[in-house]
Amino acid sequence: MSRYWSSIVHELTPYVPGEQPKLPNLVKLNTNENPYGPSPKALEALRGEVGDSLRLYPDPNSDRLKEAVAGFYHVKMSQVFVGNGSDEVLAHVFLALLKHDAPVLFPDITYSFYPVYCGLYGIAYRQLPLTESFEIQVDDYFTPNGGIIFPNPNAPTGRPLALAEIERLLCANTGSVVVVDEAYVDFGAESAVGLVDRYPNLLVIHTLSKSRSLAGLRVGYAIGHADLIEALGRVKDSFNSYPLDRFAIAGATAAIEDRAYFENTCRKVIATRTKMVADLEALGFEVLPSTANFVFARHDQHEGAELAAKLRERSIIVRHFKNPPRISPFLRITVGTDAQCEALVSALREILA
Amino acid sequence: MSRYWSSIVHELTPYVPGEQPKLPNLVKLNTNENPYGPSPKALEALRGEVGDSLRLYPDPNSDRLKEAVAGFYHVKMSQVFVGNGSDEVLAHVFLALLKHDAPVLFPDITYSFYPVYCGLYGIAYRQLPLTESFEIQVDDYFTPNGGIIFPNPNAPTGRPLALAEIERLLCANTGSVVVVDEAYVDFGAESAVGLVDRYPNLLVIHTLSKSRSLAGLRVGYAIGHADLIEALGRVKDSFNSYPLDRFAIAGATAAIEDRAYFENTCRKVIATRTKMVADLEALGFEVLPSTANFVFARHDQHEGAELAAKLRERSIIVRHFKNPPRISPFLRITVGTDAQCEALVSALREILA
Repeated sequence: MSRYWSSIVHELTPYVPGEQPKLPNLVKLNTNENPYGPSPKALEALRGEVGDSLRLYPDPNSDRLKEAVAGFYHVKMSQVFVGNGSDEVLAHVFLALLKHDAPVLFPDITYSFYPVYCGLYGIAYRQLPLTESFEIQVDDYFTPNGGIIFPNPNAPTGRPLALAEIERLLCANTGSVVVVDEAYVDFGAESAVGLVDRYPNLLVIHTLSKSRSLAGLRVGYAIGHADLIEALGRVKDSFNSYPLDRFAIAGATAAIEDRAYFENTCRKVIATRTKMVADLEALGFEVLPSTANFVFARHDQHEGAELAAKLRERSIIVRHFKNPPRISPFLRITVGTDAQCEALVSALREILA
Repeated sequence: MSRYWSSIVHELTPYVPGEQPKLPNLVKLNTNENPYGPSPKALEALRGEVGDSLRLYPDPNSDRLKEAVAGFYHVKMSQVFVGNGSDEVLAHVFLALLKHDAPVLFPDITYSFYPVYCGLYGIAYRQLPLTESFEIQVDDYFTPNGGIIFPNPNAPTGRPLALAEIERLLCANTGSVVVVDEAYVDFGAESAVGLVDRYPNLLVIHTLSKSRSLAGLRVGYAIGHADLIEALGRVKDSFNSYPLDRFAIAGATAAIEDRAYFENTCRKVIATRTKMVADLEALGFEVLPSTANFVFARHDQHEGAELAAKLRERSIIVRHFKNPPRISPFLRITVGTDAQCEALVSALREILA
């Protein structure tokens, strides 16, 4: 607290990211990273960036990367925005497209960064409760708003929303932007990218941190109507002209272009998830249906905090949310390798014995 | 223009960075990049980051880098903030420390991103004219304000302000933050970092894009009282938890630690600048006294725009600013290698002949 702070700083409640422990030999299942490394083609491209040309600024528009993303999804380059991680993309989205007089709507249980962005930019918001079974009820959103945002699948529940429901929402809400945050979509949910040509109010957000195994590189993107993309570009060019460094552009481009590696990685994660869910259920856990690279699970005889602490004693880290109270019984467990998930299940078996 | 845009987006006038042409074989003297590549130790550290660990998030606090910066300047880690280029650092500074009721003050001829940040965050500002000889007159700033910011040396003039003058400004302005943007300080001006322990209202900004030859990596930092740094951290954690990727952290840390390489590079640039200034003066140019890695020069018989266009025909790119009109006679010329500067001088000799 200082007299030099702007009033905004006094009022902020910053986001708290999952722990990035510096200890070795942990089974780290707390921040939804991919257990498999990046595409070998991405690594090769990254190696190629090490050299004298680092003295030069990167392309401020990241055209190569935009072209790769546009090619992957069969959209135009003018429909693609790229940023320094999907968190930066989301920050620009809130300021450029969700700051209006009416409140932004999002679920009460969702990515906890959304209300933080609202605090940063002075945006009014309303949180709409998930159903008893932790699902988004689209009809709840048929109300005046300054924008709508939710992850699909939702986080930290992992539950997907059907594309037909998203389309129903888009049709009923033509006056404001609907942002579908597809950070985890590649692990089994349906992407809404195919709808962007029909709905000028749809914006879809992706990250390379999960399905492309590049959390350490910080790249995310948005796909939507060129008018929405232009708004993001205007904010970006009023904030930081060069948000992506040379490594981010080169590595992300190569990762997007290597479709086979990406699809194979996603398949392996999905197969491990299926097995882990069965194992957890066999231990008495209720596991919400997940199409993400994590599961959200609770045990009717043990609190989430207690289980997380006992796992930690065994060098296994998962994520536990104290708030809102409705989700405090749950653990959010990242899908790791088969071996990591087996270690987790064995540890839980011991704890519950 | 779209009904989905927030009112802020409609009103923005984004910053226009210097051109990053994709043509080969240019003598590129337009964006103040260093003509010498990064430290070999930085390149080695970058090579070491290529691998499986890119699947993991980077350290959200970039502690290794903060430690290196703190060590270099003999300050505490709590006095260091790091960001995705000094442009991102500046953006957070405007929102966190310069957004008050009273206007921010900066020179009328200065880094043209400052008024853009004000537009983005709705900050009032006043631009104070440089003197006839393009100098900052400290007494002009002895007036109520919400903060003061200027580059030292100033851009695009290259003129430095003496440390004693900065100290006079700090003493007379204890009620708001004074930001000294030292992007170019290492090429011959005096840094104000040594003053941060005495003035809790001083914030000093640096970049690795110039004297550390890492424009392609996007790293900048701020040094000041821990209270100012905390404000920046709160905004950062409400915007993007992981602004620096693994390459940025590793490469920047190694570059800061390699003091000998850095000092040698700066010495070479300064020597080339001295020679280039003499050559330009011999051709009839007036060159403002520069302690930056660029010079600001005008010829009394030729307009800046005309000279820039004729240089471009010869594959030499320099920067020309049409506005404000007072600087339109000038060219801003980056100090390149000796060979590049000789190519520039020869071309100008031809053009003027």
